[in-house]
Amino acid sequence: MKAVRLHHYHEQPKIEQVPEPKMSGPLDVIVRIGGAGLCRTDLHIIEGQWAEKSGVSLPYTLGHENAGWVQEIGSAVSNVAVGDTVIVHPLITCGLCRACRAGNDMHCSNASFPGISVDGGMATFLKTSARAVVKLNPSLAPKDIAALADAGLTAYHAVKKASPLLYPGTKTVVIGAGGLGHIGIQCLKALTPTEIIVVDRSPAALELTRSWGADHTVVADGKHVEKVLELTDGYGAEAVIDFVGERGAEQDAVKMLRRAGSHYIIGYGGSLNVPTIDIISTEINFIGNLVGTYNDLAELMTLTAQGKVSLHTAMYPLDAALDAIHDLDSGNLRGRGILIP
Amino acid sequence: MKAVRLHHYHEQPKIEQVPEPKMSGPLDVIVRIGGAGLCRTDLHIIEGQWAEKSGVSLPYTLGHENAGWVQEIGSAVSNVAVGDTVIVHPLITCGLCRACRAGNDMHCSNASFPGISVDGGMATFLKTSARAVVKLNPSLAPKDIAALADAGLTAYHAVKKASPLLYPGTKTVVIGAGGLGHIGIQCLKALTPTEIIVVDRSPAALELTRSWGADHTVVADGKHVEKVLELTDGYGAEAVIDFVGERGAEQDAVKMLRRAGSHYIIGYGGSLNVPTIDIISTEINFIGNLVGTYNDLAELMTLTAQGKVSLHTAMYPLDAALDAIHDLDSGNLRGRGILIP
Amino acid sequence: MKAVRLHHYHEQPKIEQVPEPKMSGPLDVIVRIGGAGLCRTDLHIIEGQWAEKSGVSLPYTLGHENAGWVQEIGSAVSNVAVGDTVIVHPLITCGLCRACRAGNDMHCSNASFPGISVDGGMATFLKTSARAVVKLNPSLAPKDIAALADAGLTAYHAVKKASPLLYPGTKTVVIGAGGLGHIGIQCLKALTPTEIIVVDRSPAALELTRSWGADHTVVADGKHVEKVLELTDGYGAEAVIDFVGERGAEQDAVKMLRRAGSHYIIGYGGSLNVPTIDIISTEINFIGNLVGTYNDLAELMTLTAQGKVSLHTAMYPLDAALDAIHDLDSGNLRGRGILIP
Amino acid sequence: MKAVRLHHYHEQPKIEQVPEPKMSGPLDVIVRIGGAGLCRTDLHIIEGQWAEKSGVSLPYTLGHENAGWVQEIGSAVSNVAVGDTVIVHPLITCGLCRACRAGNDMHCSNASFPGISVDGGMATFLKTSARAVVKLNPSLAPKDIAALADAGLTAYHAVKKASPLLYPGTKTVVIGAGGLGHIGIQCLKALTPTEIIVVDRSPAALELTRSWGADHTVVADGKHVEKVLELTDGYGAEAVIDFVGERGAEQDAVKMLRRAGSHYIIGYGGSLNVPTIDIISTEINFIGNLVGTYNDLAELMTLTAQGKVSLHTAMYPLDAALDAIHDLDSGNLRGRGILIP
Repeated sequence: MKAVRLHHYHEQPKIEQVPEPKMSGPLDVIVRIGGAGLCRTDLHIIEGQWAEKSGVSLPYTLGHENAGWVQEIGSAVSNVAVGDTVIVHPLITCGLCRACRAGNDMHCSNASFPGISVDGGMATFLKTSARAVVKLNPSLAPKDIAALADAGLTAYHAVKKASPLLYPGTKTVVIGAGGLGHIGIQCLKALTPTEIIVVDRSPAALELTRSWGADHTVVADGKHVEKVLELTDGYGAEAVIDFVGERGAEQDAVKMLRRAGSHYIIGYGGSLNVPTIDIISTEINFIGNLVGTYNDLAELMTLTAQGKVSLHTAMYPLDAALDAIHDLDSGNLRGRGILIP
Repeated sequence: MKAVRLHHYHEQPKIEQVPEPKMSGPLDVIVRIGGAGLCRTDLHIIEGQWAEKSGVSLPYTLGHENAGWVQEIGSAVSNVAVGDTVIVHPLITCGLCRACRAGNDMHCSNASFPGISVDGGMATFLKTSARAVVKLNPSLAPKDIAALADAGLTAYHAVKKASPLLYPGTKTVVIGAGGLGHIGIQCLKALTPTEIIVVDRSPAALELTRSWGADHTVVADGKHVEKVLELTDGYGAEAVIDFVGERGAEQDAVKMLRRAGSHYIIGYGGSLNVPTIDIISTEINFIGNLVGTYNDLAELMTLTAQGKVSLHTAMYPLDAALDAIHDLDSGNLRGRGILIP
Repeated sequence: MKAVRLHHYHEQPKIEQVPEPKMSGPLDVIVRIGGAGLCRTDLHIIEGQWAEKSGVSLPYTLGHENAGWVQEIGSAVSNVAVGDTVIVHPLITCGLCRACRAGNDMHCSNASFPGISVDGGMATFLKTSARAVVKLNPSLAPKDIAALADAGLTAYHAVKKASPLLYPGTKTVVIGAGGLGHIGIQCLKALTPTEIIVVDRSPAALELTRSWGADHTVVADGKHVEKVLELTDGYGAEAVIDFVGERGAEQDAVKMLRRAGSHYIIGYGGSLNVPTIDIISTEINFIGNLVGTYNDLAELMTLTAQGKVSLHTAMYPLDAALDAIHDLDSGNLRGRGILIP
Repeated sequence: MKAVRLHHYHEQPKIEQVPEPKMSGPLDVIVRIGGAGLCRTDLHIIEGQWAEKSGVSLPYTLGHENAGWVQEIGSAVSNVAVGDTVIVHPLITCGLCRACRAGNDMHCSNASFPGISVDGGMATFLKTSARAVVKLNPSLAPKDIAALADAGLTAYHAVKKASPLLYPGTKTVVIGAGGLGHIGIQCLKALTPTEIIVVDRSPAALELTRSWGADHTVVADGKHVEKVLELTDGYGAEAVIDFVGERGAEQDAVKMLRRAGSHYIIGYGGSLNVPTIDIISTEINFIGNLVGTYNDLAELMTLTAQGKVSLHTAMYPLDAALDAIHDLDSGNLRGRGILIP
């Protein structure tokens, strides 16, 4: 089968023929890929930013945002059947460790992460597990919802964690109106009555967020912290959901927090740098966020089925993967890029 | 009356005669001080670290950790009577803003903070409010429990916030075995079944923590992060309660965290500096902590009455305030220093 | 001034002249009533159902659902000024007991409840407290929002308590499409993504709920439990919000619960009667609900200002109070009845 | 192998030879039983009280409280090895449904319940699943801890659910000082600082509870509700943990509740019967409790290993199962009865 394979860090991946994955355990599920999302993390992987953390051996197949149809199942798989349309939770988890049993899939002690630490889904087939597949209505096209498997899940997970704080009258700042911000804003709207302030560098991107549910938009032009403070009567926001996490956004976020406010960190690349006296004198919090749970993904698929979350995607054939990567890197990709085998 | 007054930053306060406080509102309470605790924050105030944040006009009276007896009450005060023994919550709060109504006294929109932003309790009398005084059993001596008003409250508040995470089998690192750590360890023991690992530079201080409930002690000798990881089977701890927050402790704390773990920041002086990729790839959290609520203080007084929390204190006459300050600054004060008018 | 006074249980109240209330404490607030809501609880009071619980001495003035303008304030009142438009939280609370300090106004140890235990607001003026008045935008007409002070608050409080359970994909049954149900459905829509099933005897009332956000409606015709089970794939609902609580609704609710589901009891008059084996074998819960907190009321007013909650009301002059009572009792009152002095 | 088999409701089970269980799936685990606890639920099963709810076909093997050593494992089992000492969670769960993924094992959509709905552990061998076995320190004797698998788990689960309410100064009533009460009191002590009031008919049983951590004991002599109210200053308790749930205890519990208090129902047999006006006017709650989660069981085993929970047991050879049943039924069994194959 064809696959998008990374051979060396700092070099573009190659599209090449590789053997199809083979079943090895009773809970294995092989998925025929209908769509594989392209993510900024793929760029970070190519740049070597994850080399040490993932410990993956090169070459391997990229693609951690996948949907498709069940091709083959192991003897103990009872939740899906061959032919089912599925979206794939990004982690393969054991179901036996404390984290799995507590619903924190992303902290499974025995997890592997296709596309990060083992072969991923930018290929004809992906090997995953019964614990990773969410069965969907057969009317859904995998390419249309693949981006929810990681970008969507991550945004939903962070919003869900923030939602207990967001009673009527609160204000939430969303930093970043790109792929994750897009879904994050819709999730905030669906789950909470908070007032939403979106900050982004692009006036065009901000313009779009109005239709997704943004109440206020602020161009990140150097005066955006002041503008957010103005929009919050000088107090700052109860929550800042930071989908950027680099290039200064992670520091601006801190200044936008109300006393006892929380900064949800999702984007990465930068560094948080805060004097401890500032943390204690206002009792603010910083909350890490990593993908989400299987149940989070199932809930997000419900919101999508209910029409409360929709996606903007740009389709590329798998053979054009390098074009998609180039477009993402150069800022020419509108919506989430999806590779179709 | 006599009072310990700060006239200039970077200079020692003076002990001098000032007029007694006067009643001005119906909820006012004047307390005859039985004991006023001396806190590292008093040193930070003298050094000017709080000048901008407090906005106080010099000269003013120090002392934010107070207990005594009710001397006079306003017309609308119904919760205490003249003569009652009381411990004084550090903030004067309005009872009318959202934070007060939600039980978050320390975020009152209209608060003043005696000893920080207005005249404090290192004096014969302190003016506070009905909303700040916790009535105690008359058998308690104010000088014996004054240190619970701030040091104790702060430690209790952080432990209470951490406690929902601390089920049987979890491990909690306490950084700092001084006044706050002392109370924090006892509160952890009273409120949770977590296993407690205490880290401090002083082997003597660590030795003492065993009798307060520490399960393991680690000397902060440069290899303490490795030792904590060893004691946690390489995973790190579910919670790190950091009573130091400076001189590198705040960075060590991050390395001691388990995936999804939380770093409670109480001590201050240093800076938190963490790459956002490290925050998201392990989904860790940083939680600010600022004194505590009135109900926290009442709960802590219950623990004290039940014999679950006890204090080590060193008494000084108010006239010897400068000696106490000198002893604290030079590391010669064992236990919490209490000034007695 | 004129007031609607109850002289004897089981007899209609009288509209008569009484002296105006007088200020007595520094936190007192006297409100000129713009609208006083009429509630089924007023009928229950007249029937003597609250005689023992309230302990009120007859005669007294009815009216526990009030809004108006501030007429006079005590010396310590800082949150409102004379002339402000306000909605009145139903309880007068002390602000000093543990419940008040924890935000649970309705469990204040020293509360009084105008219209239930002391003189209420079916009159020209009402005496309440600074802790009870929520300042509103002056453009709001008290008569238009008075019904939120009790009916709205009670519905909001129950929905807010239920909301942490109501993730996407859950189903919530609302029993009763009257005044409280009307607001409850809108609050569910504003606060949660749950799917809403409304049960009522009246097809006309059900028809209206569609525009408020109901996803399914079920006529309470004897087969309604089966229909709810059908709509929930045989499992039952995660939450049943029971605004009726009598005439069998309280027992139907139990049969509509999913395993681990929760029955929120708001309406009253009937009795809950459940074998303990049924409670433990499915691990279901029964949750009492009593008005709500001051902050709940402020949040509800925010939802109203945002256009997310609206009210149907029927206006009567105060002199026509007995007509309004008759209309409510005979089922001829559409929307909430509001008395206007 | 030998097994204790129920052939007809309302007749004593028989001890007879049956075939050994056989492996059928990759996650199967066969456990050689070291101890099988006898529970009041076994009596209720014999009486037919569970006939409809369990739907089990007679004859079948009793025993839902089991510990032993792993005898055989399926191909996909990775968490235990042959020879491991294990305690067995009472349910066999799928690990794939929403409840399993959320950590609510006891609500698994595909669960079976050995000893209730399929063959249990009063036998030489028990067939269970990898998801049910908690690996223990080999130094533990299964017969000594078997009673924690159900009685202990159930008590721990209820206490853990109550613990967020039980801050210092609260009071908790434990109804029933038998097997579950014994463990419940120790769990309350380990997890919370609440003051514990134990109610039981037997002064001897009450006497024992003092050493487990009871602060007050009350003989259930008809004046026990008054005595509990006295011990709670007339307010009632924040939580009542009702291990009896029949013969009037379930109604007494309601009268012992403080405003906003919660009644945790664990024992069964009786009926809860409460006017809805009483539920809403004090905002009380009734919380069902059903065994517990796998993680609950693991936490309880940690408490046991830490010496915080200990058990009183009475050992019987498996052949003497009918004697044990007779002793339990006639009130002559002190501690939990354990059958040893």
